[in-house]
Amino acid sequence: MWTFVNDKFLPREEATLPITDLALQRGYAAFDYLRTVNGIPLFIEEYIERLKNSATALRLVIPTENEWWVSRISTLIEKNKIPHSSGIRITITGGNAPDFYTPVAPNIVIDEHPLTMPGEALFNNGLHLFTYDYQRDLPAVKSINYLMAVWLQEAMKAAGADDILYQKNNIISELPRANIFLISDANEILTPDKNILEGITRKKIVENAASLGKVIKKPITTDALWQAKEIFICSTTKRILPVTTIDNRTIGDGQPGPITKALHEQFIIMENEIAAGKFQNI
Amino acid sequence: MWTFVNDKFLPREEATLPITDLALQRGYAAFDYLRTVNGIPLFIEEYIERLKNSATALRLVIPTENEWWVSRISTLIEKNKIPHSSGIRITITGGNAPDFYTPVAPNIVIDEHPLTMPGEALFNNGLHLFTYDYQRDLPAVKSINYLMAVWLQEAMKAAGADDILYQKNNIISELPRANIFLISDANEILTPDKNILEGITRKKIVENAASLGKVIKKPITTDALWQAKEIFICSTTKRILPVTTIDNRTIGDGQPGPITKALHEQFIIMENEIAAGKFQNI
Repeated sequence: MWTFVNDKFLPREEATLPITDLALQRGYAAFDYLRTVNGIPLFIEEYIERLKNSATALRLVIPTENEWWVSRISTLIEKNKIPHSSGIRITITGGNAPDFYTPVAPNIVIDEHPLTMPGEALFNNGLHLFTYDYQRDLPAVKSINYLMAVWLQEAMKAAGADDILYQKNNIISELPRANIFLISDANEILTPDKNILEGITRKKIVENAASLGKVIKKPITTDALWQAKEIFICSTTKRILPVTTIDNRTIGDGQPGPITKALHEQFIIMENEIAAGKFQNI
Repeated sequence: MWTFVNDKFLPREEATLPITDLALQRGYAAFDYLRTVNGIPLFIEEYIERLKNSATALRLVIPTENEWWVSRISTLIEKNKIPHSSGIRITITGGNAPDFYTPVAPNIVIDEHPLTMPGEALFNNGLHLFTYDYQRDLPAVKSINYLMAVWLQEAMKAAGADDILYQKNNIISELPRANIFLISDANEILTPDKNILEGITRKKIVENAASLGKVIKKPITTDALWQAKEIFICSTTKRILPVTTIDNRTIGDGQPGPITKALHEQFIIMENEIAAGKFQNI
């Protein structure tokens, strides 16, 4: 397996960063994460745009031409030849800061690894969520700050949950690595509008969902969870997964709902069409 | 210059960590930072205790015998032979996590570098602070999460300030890398008691200060800043530095105050006595 580090392709086991890097010193780095299907990166231009936005927000100066990124990602995919699905993580750090504090020229890492997507069983079982009172710092930025998310894994597992739903002042936002959607009594498709990382999968669902219901981005209270007919989460590595309980309370009838299933089928069709080259992937 | 990485001493330019390390992937690592004077590490046992507490809080499993740490730090100091003052940073990361998320066996890095302590001019000028509404996550833990601190540097500089004072709900807590003390009208020596990293320098000041006034750890409102006779900050790399303005408002008479000066002199005497071997450094 090859990894791209500062314009060199290295065997992955040789891909390292100096201990003076600001990611290691101060947890200061932006990243993004995209997925390939049969060697084709899904929605690559949108992931690159988001990566550039995150880097700009963190004042990390990186190449701005999408082609610079596409060519390197494409070369990596060609060199690694990972079958089926792979995940590609692009990390832009604060660089090797002489004062251990002030960002300098970033280190850029592009790493690829095989990815197993959730199967039918996981979809049918649905997820158990656990709410936690927290708001991520700089939520619109995809930074490497997952201190709370990693730290909370123990409490989450002790509660028998699969993932965490952040809320603050009785308003839900997102999961550490996923967005959330609710289907209301009126078949409205709702998703939080603020204090979140705007997922690319979320964006595609919003684009696709118009045929299934009215899509509304707005603040959603924690109480609204208990009235929802269906709830699902979405992310690059999970596509769409139903939520069947939150804090041990059953959501809807405790089964994956019809709109969740329809959106999931729609998403897989779109993905397969891109993988088959049926329409342009930008 | 030598750096300790996972039980090897490496030339610093070869000291690297794999890109799969959880510090790089998820900003997940504990650290601590101590200082030497003429090759003698100040308060080493107390720094090691705090490091172990941080690691435990982050569920990172490390050697528990202080001697394990003291011997490696001592060897590093002997190998590097840095004159006058050095800073020693010990980092304990979440390790090379196969799932990029769950902590495994930590990577341990001990790095040393020359350190210049603040001179008389900086002490006499005092610092200009800038308040910002923020509460660090897991404040009692010395983690590498400085996302907000680094990100705020630009706004801080634009405001003509030297450092940031965090407050939340009108209660002050700490600076990104320092604790704060106020001297009240009644010559009480006040310092926040909650939602902070308990500094080793802070602890020494509290121990030393009894001869100069009553020391009280308690919640301190932002409004109390404007009534303070003196304010100073303290940290390993700064000892004690007076604060002369906060948000462009003058503190006290805008000059380093008598209690600040006395505590500073006391601290330097203590430090020199340790460096001269006059009493045991534990």
